[in-house]
Amino acid sequence: MNMPSSDEAAPRAAAYPTFLVTISCPDRIGVVADTARFLVENGCNIVESAQYGDPDSGRFFLRTAFESQQGAGLDALRAAFEPIAVKYAMDAAFYDQGVKMPALLLVSKLGHCLNDLLYRWRAGALPIDIKGVISNHLDFKHFVETSYGLPFTYIPIEKATKAADMQRLGEAMEGSGAELFVLARYMQVLTPALCDRFSGRVINIHHSFLPSFMGARPYQRAHERGVKLIGATAHYVTSDLDEGPIIEQSVERVRHNQTTSDYVAVGRDVEAVVLARAVKWHAERRILMNGHRTVVF
Amino acid sequence: MNMPSSDEAAPRAAAYPTFLVTISCPDRIGVVADTARFLVENGCNIVESAQYGDPDSGRFFLRTAFESQQGAGLDALRAAFEPIAVKYAMDAAFYDQGVKMPALLLVSKLGHCLNDLLYRWRAGALPIDIKGVISNHLDFKHFVETSYGLPFTYIPIEKATKAADMQRLGEAMEGSGAELFVLARYMQVLTPALCDRFSGRVINIHHSFLPSFMGARPYQRAHERGVKLIGATAHYVTSDLDEGPIIEQSVERVRHNQTTSDYVAVGRDVEAVVLARAVKWHAERRILMNGHRTVVF
Amino acid sequence: MNMPSSDEAAPRAAAYPTFLVTISCPDRIGVVADTARFLVENGCNIVESAQYGDPDSGRFFLRTAFESQQGAGLDALRAAFEPIAVKYAMDAAFYDQGVKMPALLLVSKLGHCLNDLLYRWRAGALPIDIKGVISNHLDFKHFVETSYGLPFTYIPIEKATKAADMQRLGEAMEGSGAELFVLARYMQVLTPALCDRFSGRVINIHHSFLPSFMGARPYQRAHERGVKLIGATAHYVTSDLDEGPIIEQSVERVRHNQTTSDYVAVGRDVEAVVLARAVKWHAERRILMNGHRTVVF
Amino acid sequence: MNMPSSDEAAPRAAAYPTFLVTISCPDRIGVVADTARFLVENGCNIVESAQYGDPDSGRFFLRTAFESQQGAGLDALRAAFEPIAVKYAMDAAFYDQGVKMPALLLVSKLGHCLNDLLYRWRAGALPIDIKGVISNHLDFKHFVETSYGLPFTYIPIEKATKAADMQRLGEAMEGSGAELFVLARYMQVLTPALCDRFSGRVINIHHSFLPSFMGARPYQRAHERGVKLIGATAHYVTSDLDEGPIIEQSVERVRHNQTTSDYVAVGRDVEAVVLARAVKWHAERRILMNGHRTVVF
Repeated sequence: MNMPSSDEAAPRAAAYPTFLVTISCPDRIGVVADTARFLVENGCNIVESAQYGDPDSGRFFLRTAFESQQGAGLDALRAAFEPIAVKYAMDAAFYDQGVKMPALLLVSKLGHCLNDLLYRWRAGALPIDIKGVISNHLDFKHFVETSYGLPFTYIPIEKATKAADMQRLGEAMEGSGAELFVLARYMQVLTPALCDRFSGRVINIHHSFLPSFMGARPYQRAHERGVKLIGATAHYVTSDLDEGPIIEQSVERVRHNQTTSDYVAVGRDVEAVVLARAVKWHAERRILMNGHRTVVF
Repeated sequence: MNMPSSDEAAPRAAAYPTFLVTISCPDRIGVVADTARFLVENGCNIVESAQYGDPDSGRFFLRTAFESQQGAGLDALRAAFEPIAVKYAMDAAFYDQGVKMPALLLVSKLGHCLNDLLYRWRAGALPIDIKGVISNHLDFKHFVETSYGLPFTYIPIEKATKAADMQRLGEAMEGSGAELFVLARYMQVLTPALCDRFSGRVINIHHSFLPSFMGARPYQRAHERGVKLIGATAHYVTSDLDEGPIIEQSVERVRHNQTTSDYVAVGRDVEAVVLARAVKWHAERRILMNGHRTVVF
Repeated sequence: MNMPSSDEAAPRAAAYPTFLVTISCPDRIGVVADTARFLVENGCNIVESAQYGDPDSGRFFLRTAFESQQGAGLDALRAAFEPIAVKYAMDAAFYDQGVKMPALLLVSKLGHCLNDLLYRWRAGALPIDIKGVISNHLDFKHFVETSYGLPFTYIPIEKATKAADMQRLGEAMEGSGAELFVLARYMQVLTPALCDRFSGRVINIHHSFLPSFMGARPYQRAHERGVKLIGATAHYVTSDLDEGPIIEQSVERVRHNQTTSDYVAVGRDVEAVVLARAVKWHAERRILMNGHRTVVF
Repeated sequence: MNMPSSDEAAPRAAAYPTFLVTISCPDRIGVVADTARFLVENGCNIVESAQYGDPDSGRFFLRTAFESQQGAGLDALRAAFEPIAVKYAMDAAFYDQGVKMPALLLVSKLGHCLNDLLYRWRAGALPIDIKGVISNHLDFKHFVETSYGLPFTYIPIEKATKAADMQRLGEAMEGSGAELFVLARYMQVLTPALCDRFSGRVINIHHSFLPSFMGARPYQRAHERGVKLIGATAHYVTSDLDEGPIIEQSVERVRHNQTTSDYVAVGRDVEAVVLARAVKWHAERRILMNGHRTVVF
C-alpha cells in the first residue's frame, strides 16, 4: 500500500447500517406506498430515493437507500419483503452499502483508464474491491504488482487459438470472484458465449460518441469526417459489438488544426472520466435496465 | 397571435388530471410512507417523484406529481392531507399541473432575454401565463404589443423620484395578478420593501458566474481579470444585492482575443438559456428553499 | 423596425477601413512572408491573422484582417496581389469587412432558429444583411412581415410538383441577391441541382450530433438508442444528405426520465446556438474548405 | 521505468529540427512581415503560427513554430534575428521544440494532480522533463520513488521555522535545475521572496473558479453559497494570493443533494485536467504575459 488516501473532507460516519433496495416492476398504484410502509414498519429511515415510471414500457423503477435503525438485518428484510415483491411482480434486490463490489479490470496496451481507476480506487473514490488485473499483454504487470500490490494475470489472445484463449479468460474471470468486469481499453472482442455468461456485468469504454463511429479506429474516422467534438461512451457489453446499453457519455471540443494523434490525447481524458463514472454508478447500484436503455439514478 | 407553436413531437394527452404536491419538513421516519399511502387511499398514481434529506439542516424535501384516477379534486385532497401535514410540521402545497403560473416580465434596454422568454412562451415551452411586460424604457413597447399582443406598462425610474417610482412599480406588479416576476435584464435595483413584499417570487438574471463579479459591469471586470470562462446566474431577488439563493448557472469559454464587447455577445446566449431554465423550473414548482440554498428537483 | 439594438458595450469605431484576405494554396515556404510584405508595402496593418498548414493534404490556409492606413482600396489591393496569388497557385479573396453578407433564411414550421437569427440580426450580432424569408408554409408570414418588416415568400413544395417547385425555389434564391442561404429548420431536401448551383453557400442545421442519426426523426432515434447527450450540427449542404462539411456542433445532456418531446425542447436551444455560430463564422469568412473538412479560423 | 508509453497513433517524425519563436512587442506595421521574411531568408518553413494584437494595451504577440530546412541552428538564428528584435523593441525568444522543459512537482497530502501529471509525463503526453518531487509530507515518497523512479525531497514547513524552511525550499527549487515549478495541490503559501524569485515559473491549481472563493476551503464555501457549478483555476503564482494571471479554468455541475465531500471528489477531476492543460501549454511556450492577463496560443 503505497499511496495515501487522505482527503480534505471526510464523509460523516453512519450511525446505523445503510442498506439499499432496487426495484423494477410493472407500474401500478401502491408500489411506492407499500415499499415505504414496509420500511417504516421495519424501523428503516429513507436516506435517498429515486424513482421513474416509463410511460413507453410501462415499467417502474425505484432505488432507495435507507438506514436500519432498529437492528433489522439484510437477510431478514429481504425475506420479509418477499410478499410485496411477489404482489407487484418485482425484480427486487437488497444490498448492504458497506460491502464493496468485487471487480476485475481488463486492459491491453493503453493504460490511462487503468491508471485512473486504480488511483481512484486507492483514494477511496470508487466503492469497488479490485481483485486483480487481467491483460493480453505484459506491459502493466510490473506497475500493477509494484505500485498497487494487485495480482496480474497474463492471458494472451492469439488468432489461431482464440476460442481456447477466450475459454481460459472466462475461467479466470469466473475464478476471480468478481461481480463486475471493467474493460479498461481491453482491445479484444469477447466471444458471444462470454458476453452472455457475464451479461450486465461487463462495462466497456468505447472511444467515440456512440452510435457514431462504431467499430475500429474511431478517432481516425472522426478526424476524416471533420467532426467538431469527439467523445467516449461507457456501455454494457453485449454480443452486438458497440450496441450494448449506454451508461454514460461525454465529449470534448477539437479543432481543425488537431491531428488524429491529438484526438487520441484529448480522448484519453474523456475516456477515463466517463469510464470512472460508469463504474462508480454501477457499483452504487444506480443503473437499472429498461429494455435496451439504462435508467441512471 | 402571430407565431405558431407547432412542434414535431406532441406530448401525450393525460387521461386524468395531474396534480403536484411539494413538501418541506423536518426529516423523520414515516413522511414518505404516510404521503404515499395517502395518495393510494385517494386513488392517485405517482407519475414522478423526487426527494432529498439534507443531513446538515435536517430538513426533508419532496415533490411528487400524481394522477388523480378516481376523481378526487385538488381542494378535497388538500383538506384530507391536513392531518398528515400537521403531524410532520410540513410546509405542504398542492397544485394543478394544468394551471399555468401567471407571470410578469420586467426589462430595460437589452432585449435578448425578453425575446427568448416570449418566444418560448408562445411555442408552449414555458408553463407560464404572461400577463404583460413592465419596463423603465419604451424600447420594446411596439415589439411586445405588436408581435405578442401583450400589455406593455411604462414605468420610468428616476433618481430624484425613485421612492415614488418604485412604489408605483410595486402596485403595478401587485395589480397584474402575477405570481412570478422575471427580471429579464431589468437594470434597476428593487427597493428592500419590494424585495420583501415579493420574496421568493422575483427571479433575476445576473450576467456573471456568482459570486464572482457581483454588482455592476461584470463582463468588463471579467475581462480585466482575465478569466477563461464567463457565466450567468439566475437567482431569487433578496435585499442583499446579487446574494439571493441561486437557481441555475452556466458558463461559456472565452479567449484572450475577445473584447468585452465579445463577452457581452457570448454572455447573451448564456443569460437567455439560464434564465429560461430558472423560469421553467420555478413554474413547474421544482425549486424548494433550503435556507439560503435551493433544492432543484 | 421595432426592436432596438442597444447594447452595453459598443465596439470601438475603426479609424481606417478594415479589409480581409483569405488564402488557400499548396503549402510552400514564402507564402506568409510574401503576403505580409505585400500588406506592409501597401500601407496595411494586420489586425488579426490565423493560419493553418494541413500536413495530410499539404494545403495551407490563411485569413488575415488588416487596416488600410494609406488609402489603398479593395480593388487596387486585389489587382496588386495578383502576381503573388499566381506565384503560389492561391485561391485568394479580398473582402471589405464593412460590407455585410446578403442572406436569405428558409424555414418550414419550426420557428426557433428563425426567431433566434432574426433577433440576433436586429441586435447587430450577425454581420449579415437579411433579404427576406422563404417558406413552404405560411405560419411565419405575419411574424416576419410585422415584427421584422422583411419580405416573406411562400413557395409550397408538393410531392406531385416537386421538380417544378424546386425550380421556382432556385429562381427565388437566385433572384434574392443573397450570397448565403440558411436552412433554419427548412424541412425539404434540396434537389442535387440546387445543391450544386449554390455549393458552399447553403448552411443547414441538422438536429443530431452527426454522423449519428442521419436522416429523419433523429431525436426519436436518439431516445430509442438511449444516448446520454443529444446534439445539433450545422453543415454545408451537398447532394449527399447530412454528409456535407461540418461547420459546428454542440451537445446537451439528457436523462432517462426525459421523453422524445423533452429532447425536442432541449434540442431547440442547441440548434439555435449552433446555427447562429455557423452563420456568424461564415459571414465573417472564417470558414475555409479543406476537401470535405472545414477550417474554422 | 515501469509504465509503457504505447499509444495508438504515433505523431509523424519530423524531417528537420523544429524551432519556436515567441515575440511580444509594441504593435507596429512590419512586425509579421519582417519576421516572416527573416524565416524565409534563413530557410525556415512555418509550421504553425498564432498572433494577437491587443487594442487595449497596444501590445502585439506572436508564436511561430518552424522547421529549419537548410541547417540554420538555434544560436545562429537567435543572433541573426537580433537587429529585428531591437528594431521593434521585442521580447523575443527562440526555443528548440525537441528539448523538454525541466520541471519540478510540489505536493502536500492530496495526490490526484501528482498522479495525473506523472502518468501523463510517463505516457509522453507532457513535453516536460520531471526532475523530481518536493513535499512537506512523506505520504508520496514511496509512490514517487518506486512507481516512477524519481527523486523525492522532503522539506517540512513548520510554523515556528517557516522563514528558514522556505529558504531551504527555495534552494532546493533552484538546485533542481528546473525551469517550471508545479504546485500540484501544494498547501503552503510561498513567501513573497520565492514568488518574486521564480516569477512566471510557478503554476498553482486553485480548487475554485476564481475569483470566486479565493483563499481557504473553497469547496465548503461553494457548498454554503449554493452554487450550481464548481470549478478549478490554474494560475501563475504571485505574491498576491490567488490573484496571479489565470492560465486555464473549467467547471463541473453539482446538485443540491451533493455534500462538500462530493464536491471534493468532483473537483478532483476538474483540478487534474485544468492543471495538466496549463502545464502542457506552458511547456509548449503557448502562454505569453499581457500585463496581468495571459495570451494562450
